[in-house]
Amino acid sequence: MKSDLDALMKARHLDAILVLGHAEHNPPMYYFTGGGHVSHAALIKKSGQPPVLFCNDMEREEAAKSGLEVICFSKYPYSELLKEAAGNTLLVGALRFQRMFADLGIGAGRIGIYGHYDLSSVIGVLQELRRLMPDLELVGESREDSIFMYAMESKDEAEVERIRKIGRITTAVVGRVAEYLTGCDVRSDEVLLKENGQPLTIGDVKGLINLWLAELGAENPEGTIFAIGRDAGIPHSTGNPEDLIRLGRTIVFDIFPCEQGGGYFYDFTRTWSLGYATPEAQKLYDEVRGAHAKVMENLDLNVPFKTYQRMVCEYFEALGHQTPLNTEAPVEGYVHSLGHGLGLNVHERPWSGLTAADDNLLKPGVVVTVEPGLYYPERDMGVRIEDSVWIRPDGRAEILAEYPYDFVLKMKKWNR
Amino acid sequence: MKSDLDALMKARHLDAILVLGHAEHNPPMYYFTGGGHVSHAALIKKSGQPPVLFCNDMEREEAAKSGLEVICFSKYPYSELLKEAAGNTLLVGALRFQRMFADLGIGAGRIGIYGHYDLSSVIGVLQELRRLMPDLELVGESREDSIFMYAMESKDEAEVERIRKIGRITTAVVGRVAEYLTGCDVRSDEVLLKENGQPLTIGDVKGLINLWLAELGAENPEGTIFAIGRDAGIPHSTGNPEDLIRLGRTIVFDIFPCEQGGGYFYDFTRTWSLGYATPEAQKLYDEVRGAHAKVMENLDLNVPFKTYQRMVCEYFEALGHQTPLNTEAPVEGYVHSLGHGLGLNVHERPWSGLTAADDNLLKPGVVVTVEPGLYYPERDMGVRIEDSVWIRPDGRAEILAEYPYDFVLKMKKWNR
Repeated sequence: MKSDLDALMKARHLDAILVLGHAEHNPPMYYFTGGGHVSHAALIKKSGQPPVLFCNDMEREEAAKSGLEVICFSKYPYSELLKEAAGNTLLVGALRFQRMFADLGIGAGRIGIYGHYDLSSVIGVLQELRRLMPDLELVGESREDSIFMYAMESKDEAEVERIRKIGRITTAVVGRVAEYLTGCDVRSDEVLLKENGQPLTIGDVKGLINLWLAELGAENPEGTIFAIGRDAGIPHSTGNPEDLIRLGRTIVFDIFPCEQGGGYFYDFTRTWSLGYATPEAQKLYDEVRGAHAKVMENLDLNVPFKTYQRMVCEYFEALGHQTPLNTEAPVEGYVHSLGHGLGLNVHERPWSGLTAADDNLLKPGVVVTVEPGLYYPERDMGVRIEDSVWIRPDGRAEILAEYPYDFVLKMKKWNR
Repeated sequence: MKSDLDALMKARHLDAILVLGHAEHNPPMYYFTGGGHVSHAALIKKSGQPPVLFCNDMEREEAAKSGLEVICFSKYPYSELLKEAAGNTLLVGALRFQRMFADLGIGAGRIGIYGHYDLSSVIGVLQELRRLMPDLELVGESREDSIFMYAMESKDEAEVERIRKIGRITTAVVGRVAEYLTGCDVRSDEVLLKENGQPLTIGDVKGLINLWLAELGAENPEGTIFAIGRDAGIPHSTGNPEDLIRLGRTIVFDIFPCEQGGGYFYDFTRTWSLGYATPEAQKLYDEVRGAHAKVMENLDLNVPFKTYQRMVCEYFEALGHQTPLNTEAPVEGYVHSLGHGLGLNVHERPWSGLTAADDNLLKPGVVVTVEPGLYYPERDMGVRIEDSVWIRPDGRAEILAEYPYDFVLKMKKWNR
């Protein structure tokens, strides 16, 4: 929770944090501002104090919507800084930070740096700042374990409600896609046809997904995976836009939209086979479904998330598949980890990999994905089933947006 | 052009560049990969050599679509690195970079760092890397003047064609919005009504904009400005979703979508007054239109962009408005600069601010916005007119997506 940040800063001996970048699509900044059209901004929070947001004058009113104290960059006139820096724009940035810190009474100490932003300029400016303020220690933290990853890990009910809402939009779109696909005409070679008689492509389906997400008020800044056949066997292959949709192939449909303006994400996957399934695809599906069900039945409060990764590895290995438990970076079988936390980041704490630290627990208030999968690109198939799950304060694991687990989708106008 | 990168690296004594982050919505990485679902990737380009793309195994096929040489991170087994780093995940990242550099024969030299990515982890990892490889000098460059900003500045015809195409989508959406607004019923208090008889809000209009952009195959990762009345008087106020659309107020509609998957942007603004305009708004509009026309008539090859900023400042000051020429950070009048380059970044070189370096020229192949505006928030009005313009190799300035300059939009079902 956001209220944990001060304790986290204290534990890591951070006297202040500096967050850089836009207010949208930038989780640490969004966490404070709640979004808004504030670009190239900076936020400084001293230990135990409320944050102060610095922004361009033109965006002062957007910044003020955050409810935070706002200081406009014009307080530090650019032309003066440029003169003082003799035209060195990196030094201009450093001089401005120096003045901003001075205004908040910061002259020394450990400062954590955060945000999703232009690396080059920040690295250049901070190098100048180190020269200007040698008593400042500028601290970076690992993406997996930063104070934000810890603070964001447990969600309050308002956050969960927002994730649930984007989950409902997600499954509504998935339902529309299923409805659309199963209503298509089918050519004699089992290719689906559009209304105009042309073959239906992955690109067409993705166009509809984008349209329906926009209509229901969501964005998908990271795209959508809609992969068929061999591509379905490669977990992060997004699908080739020109590929045709055919019956009887595994289709991995992984959709991870966020709120409009870059807020909370949902993450969801179903695998379908249209019209019919080959016996070997059906077997693969049943095995993944078995793993998914086993995890869902066993999720328990305050257990390390990787316990379930190990459970799934053992389950799949008993069925004869390679997994990360006994194979380094397998390329077929079970090739990834079970899931991840979900929030303002599509991937966040807690982590479930076998090497994850023991403190990645299913604490009350975490929202995690459960997404076992099996992949055989050389056999043209892959299966993944994913739900996003809230570990409720009462210990119950609640899927935030329920959706059926049908593998074979019956075609309305086609019979074998 | 991309082919300029080697000369730019040489001029800045960079032995190699390291680009980090996702392939989408990350201009320096996209410039090499052309997009794709490749996340948390790294790209190293040695001076005079083609780049090498490093990625997670799961995304190897997405990475391969770039046509670049691809190396999977599994070549550097995580479990070994974690052991060697005694669990320090920042050191794990540094050890991996060390091995990646070694594989490309890099042991020393100046390395430029680029990309839009998580600052904290990169700052932390590079700090460890400096300890591991003291002969490496890690270089940051200012956002305004990096080698990428110079390389990207001039576009080839294929790039211009892509910008033109997204421009056509942009103006098509603007046309649909105009058509929709002017077809609305109007309540006796001059508020526009939706089909269901409810008042039309800014939020409703933005929903339609998002829907139509998705339908036509564009994204708007940075949102859209649709601001009325006082908000129109604050250049980057995006508009309050609850505000009602009324006749006779200035509406600033600034729309800057990009290709699906985070490619090239377009940037476009019109200001409208529905049904009628107040005389003072009409006067303001005519003044901005005059400035826009004056610039368009005078754009000439290889002239510093800021020449036209000065021209507009002088033009507006002669009409009695404050401008940055003689007022530091004005909050009313002409409060921003004339435009900016446009490409994979919505804002890039050449810059037009009065303090911009003299080498920000209208070189052949640049695409720039021309967007004069006048803002009077206390008088509840603002006007901006913006087109994106290609400076053709033959010196002609071509608006990439033409659209009419009507200020007052006649309402179909309403007469004064």
